[in-house]
Amino acid sequence: MHAPHPIDVAAKASGEPTFREIGVGPWEQTHPGEPRPTDPKYDSQLLDEGDRRNVLDRYRYWTVAAIKADLDARGRHDFEVAVENWTHDFNIGSMVRTANAFQARRVHIVGPHKWNRKGALMTELYQHVENHPSIAELVDCWHNRIAGEIAAARAEAGAAALHAHQAAQRGDTQALAARTAQVDAAEARIRELEAARVIAMDIIPGAVPMERYAFPKRCLLLFGAEGPGLSDKALELADDVVYISQFGSVRSINAGAAAAVAMHSWIAQHAVIGGVAE
Amino acid sequence: MHAPHPIDVAAKASGEPTFREIGVGPWEQTHPGEPRPTDPKYDSQLLDEGDRRNVLDRYRYWTVAAIKADLDARGRHDFEVAVENWTHDFNIGSMVRTANAFQARRVHIVGPHKWNRKGALMTELYQHVENHPSIAELVDCWHNRIAGEIAAARAEAGAAALHAHQAAQRGDTQALAARTAQVDAAEARIRELEAARVIAMDIIPGAVPMERYAFPKRCLLLFGAEGPGLSDKALELADDVVYISQFGSVRSINAGAAAAVAMHSWIAQHAVIGGVAE
Repeated sequence: MHAPHPIDVAAKASGEPTFREIGVGPWEQTHPGEPRPTDPKYDSQLLDEGDRRNVLDRYRYWTVAAIKADLDARGRHDFEVAVENWTHDFNIGSMVRTANAFQARRVHIVGPHKWNRKGALMTELYQHVENHPSIAELVDCWHNRIAGEIAAARAEAGAAALHAHQAAQRGDTQALAARTAQVDAAEARIRELEAARVIAMDIIPGAVPMERYAFPKRCLLLFGAEGPGLSDKALELADDVVYISQFGSVRSINAGAAAAVAMHSWIAQHAVIGGVAE
Repeated sequence: MHAPHPIDVAAKASGEPTFREIGVGPWEQTHPGEPRPTDPKYDSQLLDEGDRRNVLDRYRYWTVAAIKADLDARGRHDFEVAVENWTHDFNIGSMVRTANAFQARRVHIVGPHKWNRKGALMTELYQHVENHPSIAELVDCWHNRIAGEIAAARAEAGAAALHAHQAAQRGDTQALAARTAQVDAAEARIRELEAARVIAMDIIPGAVPMERYAFPKRCLLLFGAEGPGLSDKALELADDVVYISQFGSVRSINAGAAAAVAMHSWIAQHAVIGGVAE
């Protein structure tokens, strides 16, 4: 029998590994004397048994449907992510989970239909996840969607400009101001949509370092699998190829970790950051 | 038998999954007509058979020892990372790999001695990895090390100031300027060391959002395991508790991904970023 390692003996003696409790117990314990809520957003089983799920505290005791509806009502961010699934990479689950945490507008799985949901921790339930047979099809769809939104914004700007003109003729300064603001907002949205880009995240010759890259607000981020990186077609169809600066010996960090770093860079540049955690 | 899913049929038909080749073949193929290098930094087996390891292209054909020596010679960054190993979390390997990619000064494994090396992809060979029985012992060691460096910098500043004084008395303006610059450099280092902080990465009440947090150049980042997060002792001993902003339904992203996002935030604030990838 081996003698135990001295670090392990000292670790055991430290008594350190005590952890705070995550989540909440049954409603009667956490809110003694308070009436049990009847709002349908609450799940009666969770109220009975407590809620130890890996969800933010604001969603304690809520049903999955109520959480998804709340996320949609709060609005999602303007970036979308796509993951190539040619090698059935186990990091896809982790990417879906990160996309949920950072509220990506949509998640696209490219290639074979089935993917490894293990690391997603059920977050796919709260996320808009789409399948695409190929990068070419996905990029085509995405460009069409952007073009459609630009056309809609142009129509809106045109109609508002006409109404502004009519208001000016009537001498209605209040309506004129409101319609002019509407034109400005639609034009700002058009500029944002016209600046949309497809961004391949990979380390290849000619790629630019992410730390100096200004993410367009509206964008589609392409991630490849561990090992091979993105397919040739993905690199060909991207507007920009961006890499995470590497300072050590490895070519890359873990694919799930790299996707998180890239999505977080968008967040740091564009998201509204809240205050101290509650 | 199930009919194949239409996405899978179209994916197969797309012909997209072709990938560029990672790494290099045998020296004779990649450098035809050139003499085979004799520098001992090259590994003769890699020269013979090619190098498909997950290393940066600048290290192609190099031995492990030569790569580690080069990383040490280039210098490492001023942040250190510590991972609690109470639950034998499989993300530790991924964190070690990221620490290598972002050149953390040291990696500390806290608690039980053995950790899951799978995700590290052998990067632990290139990294200074230390074991500690407890967070209390680690934080104590770290504070002592910082205090020692401050004492050394103070001694250096004092000696340089004395020499500056003597140079001024001799009227040697060149020596005076050199010695004064030495005092200034030592004092800048003292300020940097005095601003060093222990930072717990976790989402608890009162934590501050990382996106608004200015990382001190010299710091020790503490990471917990998936699920329980950091131990009570780690949260107690930290100077700051910092969380990654969450916008979706989950409380947190994958632990390995979160560690990468945090280390990268330090990189974005303090590292020297290179140019276009080669």
